[in-house]
Amino acid sequence: IARLKLKLQLFCGDEIAMGPGKAALLQAIARTGSISAAGRELGMSYRRAWVLVDTMNRCFARPLVEAHSGSGAWVTEAGEAALADYLALAEAAGKAAAGPHFARLEAALRELPEP
Amino acid sequence: IARLKLKLQLFCGDEIAMGPGKAALLQAIARTGSISAAGRELGMSYRRAWVLVDTMNRCFARPLVEAHSGSGAWVTEAGEAALADYLALAEAAGKAAAGPHFARLEAALRELPEP
Repeated sequence: IARLKLKLQLFCGDEIAMGPGKAALLQAIARTGSISAAGRELGMSYRRAWVLVDTMNRCFARPLVEAHSGSGAWVTEAGEAALADYLALAEAAGKAAAGPHFARLEAALRELPEP
Repeated sequence: IARLKLKLQLFCGDEIAMGPGKAALLQAIARTGSISAAGRELGMSYRRAWVLVDTMNRCFARPLVEAHSGSGAWVTEAGEAALADYLALAEAAGKAAAGPHFARLEAALRELPEP
């Protein structure tokens, strides 16, 4: 019932350059070839998806996503590298977290009634 | 300039049983012996601090904080154990994250002008 959520955020100044939402969006853009389709898949408005893409592109030295009206959007080589590094980081952190400390914390939680 | 923020949240149902804010609050309560002083130290309203304490106490089987009007508040044994496990978890996850993937991600960020 309890679950541990690990959120890894990479900041550039006050902005989040990469985090769980942006990583999911990159994956959806790679899959769908479109910012709007990717946003829809994640239950995000087009505007929201566009803002996330714009933030990533401003935070990184090379754009992670390129888009041209009429020909959709794609994840660049820099985008694929950033995504792979982020996912590897998140996985390493998650594995490190899954140990006796977690088991003890989970065991200390109150049993919740089934919904 | 870039920095990686790692946020570990332990959920019970939809609520956050333990996370960075609640861990900081527990530490401040242990230090100050008071929920309101702890909240002030963290720039939190008394109401906000109280809500965080209440959530922790409802999520865990044994209360993490006890408070009596007139005699302040203290972190229980269960609270000390939960805090120690959470901090150990967060440290392990952070160490795991500090590797070549992080260095590459950081190097890919745009250089920001000094503020």
